[in-house]
Amino acid sequence: MAKEFVKDITSMDEDFAQWYTDVVTKADLIDYSSVRGSMIIRPYGYALWENIKNELDHRIKETGHENVYMPLFIPESLLQKEKDHIEGFAPEVAWVTHGGSEELTERWCVRPTSEVLFCEHYKNIIHSYRDLPKLYNQWANVVRWEKTTRPFLRTLEFLWQEGHTCHATDEEAHDETKRMLEVYADVCENILAIPVIKGQKTEKEKFAGAKFTYTIESLMHDGKALQSGTSHHLGDGFAKAFGIQFTDQAGNLQYVQQTSWGFTTRIIGAMIMVHGDDRGLVMPPKVAPTQVMIVPIAQHKEGVLDFAYELKDRLSKSVRVEIDASDKKPGWKFNEYEMKGIPLRLEVGPKDIEKGQVILARRDTGEKIIVSMEELDEKLNQILDDIQKNIFQKASKHREERTSIASNLDHLKNNLETKPGFVKAMWCGNRECEDKVKEETGATSRCMPFEQEAVSDKCVCCGVTANQMVYWAKAY
Amino acid sequence: MAKEFVKDITSMDEDFAQWYTDVVTKADLIDYSSVRGSMIIRPYGYALWENIKNELDHRIKETGHENVYMPLFIPESLLQKEKDHIEGFAPEVAWVTHGGSEELTERWCVRPTSEVLFCEHYKNIIHSYRDLPKLYNQWANVVRWEKTTRPFLRTLEFLWQEGHTCHATDEEAHDETKRMLEVYADVCENILAIPVIKGQKTEKEKFAGAKFTYTIESLMHDGKALQSGTSHHLGDGFAKAFGIQFTDQAGNLQYVQQTSWGFTTRIIGAMIMVHGDDRGLVMPPKVAPTQVMIVPIAQHKEGVLDFAYELKDRLSKSVRVEIDASDKKPGWKFNEYEMKGIPLRLEVGPKDIEKGQVILARRDTGEKIIVSMEELDEKLNQILDDIQKNIFQKASKHREERTSIASNLDHLKNNLETKPGFVKAMWCGNRECEDKVKEETGATSRCMPFEQEAVSDKCVCCGVTANQMVYWAKAY
Repeated sequence: MAKEFVKDITSMDEDFAQWYTDVVTKADLIDYSSVRGSMIIRPYGYALWENIKNELDHRIKETGHENVYMPLFIPESLLQKEKDHIEGFAPEVAWVTHGGSEELTERWCVRPTSEVLFCEHYKNIIHSYRDLPKLYNQWANVVRWEKTTRPFLRTLEFLWQEGHTCHATDEEAHDETKRMLEVYADVCENILAIPVIKGQKTEKEKFAGAKFTYTIESLMHDGKALQSGTSHHLGDGFAKAFGIQFTDQAGNLQYVQQTSWGFTTRIIGAMIMVHGDDRGLVMPPKVAPTQVMIVPIAQHKEGVLDFAYELKDRLSKSVRVEIDASDKKPGWKFNEYEMKGIPLRLEVGPKDIEKGQVILARRDTGEKIIVSMEELDEKLNQILDDIQKNIFQKASKHREERTSIASNLDHLKNNLETKPGFVKAMWCGNRECEDKVKEETGATSRCMPFEQEAVSDKCVCCGVTANQMVYWAKAY
Repeated sequence: MAKEFVKDITSMDEDFAQWYTDVVTKADLIDYSSVRGSMIIRPYGYALWENIKNELDHRIKETGHENVYMPLFIPESLLQKEKDHIEGFAPEVAWVTHGGSEELTERWCVRPTSEVLFCEHYKNIIHSYRDLPKLYNQWANVVRWEKTTRPFLRTLEFLWQEGHTCHATDEEAHDETKRMLEVYADVCENILAIPVIKGQKTEKEKFAGAKFTYTIESLMHDGKALQSGTSHHLGDGFAKAFGIQFTDQAGNLQYVQQTSWGFTTRIIGAMIMVHGDDRGLVMPPKVAPTQVMIVPIAQHKEGVLDFAYELKDRLSKSVRVEIDASDKKPGWKFNEYEMKGIPLRLEVGPKDIEKGQVILARRDTGEKIIVSMEELDEKLNQILDDIQKNIFQKASKHREERTSIASNLDHLKNNLETKPGFVKAMWCGNRECEDKVKEETGATSRCMPFEQEAVSDKCVCCGVTANQMVYWAKAY
């Protein structure tokens, strides 16, 4: 028999970074390879991504968008067409210089994002107001040449969707920017059970080439923030650089108004750091690849395995259920599926069969519940719903506890040290103050929330009158 | 009002290559960009790919495989580990030499296929017979630096799935190779309505690094063949190069036996060239993004549009239905949706409403059918099934008519000229004869079919005794 040992993971409080690395590798989400900074997304991690992707894709299509696929490469001259954009991305792209044994006459970069490819295409296909709006989305891999990388959080290559739309008016583009941020917030809160703050990025933190950027920000267990999805109003900057014009109803030539928005595999890192604990992952039931794991007890006894397999068949009609009938010990199995964050463990042994019951163990609370066979199907769905709600509430409570108010720089610094998390503070709007906050405290402006509060009337940095509240935090 | 003109496409018989280009662009499947050899897959083309992908993904999962995601890049040293493999692929890979402004110490290629990445991973995760089989699949983009490209058929970048599996025995790997070829054949024949020949590639035509390659070959309207899916038994060549070993039940260290298999966006090219006609695309109902297009007649008349929209809502429960209520003329719409190959057009005007009926027009036969509102739901599904069957039969008949037998080289050459298509002929097994056939006739060995026939007893080239029948054809 193979060795059975309980996989150890570092405690969160001892070393949060090591805890994270332990969890992503030991729960079989990823593996490393000789490709620096990239990750192998293993079956358990990829099944999770597929579930997230399906939820989001469904919403993207429901809001009238169509999927397309653009080339992986961007010729250097095309990338250079929009000035701010190339400045933002040139330092971090991978350059292809040779095809086979031949040197290229022009370098091609591997797409870091696809605005310029969409723009070139939109110029071809948009001519009249009748062609608008164009609501396109793409699921793709992109590459950014990062120096320091961590699985899911910052990788050289990552998977994402990028929406790119064209509209006749600024207002329509604005509505779209808002609509897609709301879709991201919906997926985060209602599917991944991650509470988010919705708001606008400062000029400093906005997307290269955008008019403005909306963002959703979430708070990790260690009190650091994570940007969880962004939606950009591009205005007509790209349209002017690429000449994307249409004839309006009055017969006048106009530039289109554009948006772009993206959501990435990074969200898996957020999910891990928001819900995980010292026993490993905690999967939100709505995206858990396996929602219920059946562990037969005393499975060598007659009838147990047959019963367990029949149960699996029956339950598979309403939940994602698996069974571990291997000859490993129940203790090993308990540990393994807790590590993997499977929401519910179902134990069934000879005595349970006799009594017409099973035992359910909740991953989130550790609670054990005896349920009769008759009530099982109904109860399962009810408990899964309850787990989904409970982990969202837990994360909301944690964020609440880790959100403070500061009225000056010392106060802000002190809050970040004593109780790392979000700090709400006023800002005068000057880049100098934003830079100084970062220099002195290590925190960046996460967003200017849509829900403003007058937590003070002075800038947290320079003390002049200020009416803009900002969420500040150290961030991933 | 916008100009309405009927899009012209070149006739197939006049210039098949131009017909193909007209169809892929004018039916809005793809667009070109400044990225040489790559294509933009537009919403209509991508929705088609999503439908094909879903059908195949479903079957891949049902046969026990799990999806994973491997890195886009392969360091040169890793690619070089298996000798035959690097020789096969090195001339056609794109090389990344710089990240941002820094030159890399080792070049990375963009994956042309991912065998070496899977192998490196398998070495990490396979140790015991308990870890086998490993049945992985990946949906990804790959790049091959082709000089001459055509949309779908041969592109610098294409989308595909690549399966990679490890097994304890040669027999199991052999079974897997066969199983996945059958899955591909099932998707081609029963979903895409493309009849295929199943067989084995010759040594010359097999995959670089494989023990042998199974293939499905289909025949296009112009009589050229197209390789439509391949499944490779890799033996233990990669396992030895990468050191992928496991301890068997007796405690001995063994190398794993591997397979790989791939199916690409190329199949869309096949679908177009098998079913299309001078009016444009013909979509198999099972993958058609829109199965039924409602065209309201005299839609300005009271009640017509309301009726048409209600009908759409009702039908959308059982078929993929759209409505074109734009102010373009019905004639323009008829032409447009015929070009796009939508299986059924549904016409409904004031008189039809009065009579409680609609008119269905079949794309495959041009037949018009009057159907009463009561029978409509049932009839629609029945006719869609019938179209699916009919276009498969039509393609089968075409292949039959274009399949001939040859007993010597002149005969083979003559057949290919007078009636381009598959030629069945015997082959002695020598590479020299295979090369000579290509030189003299332009045809390559497509496969040694599983269903052998003794069409002669001598090699078509050298005339020595031969018992291997081969399908020969000019090919895409």
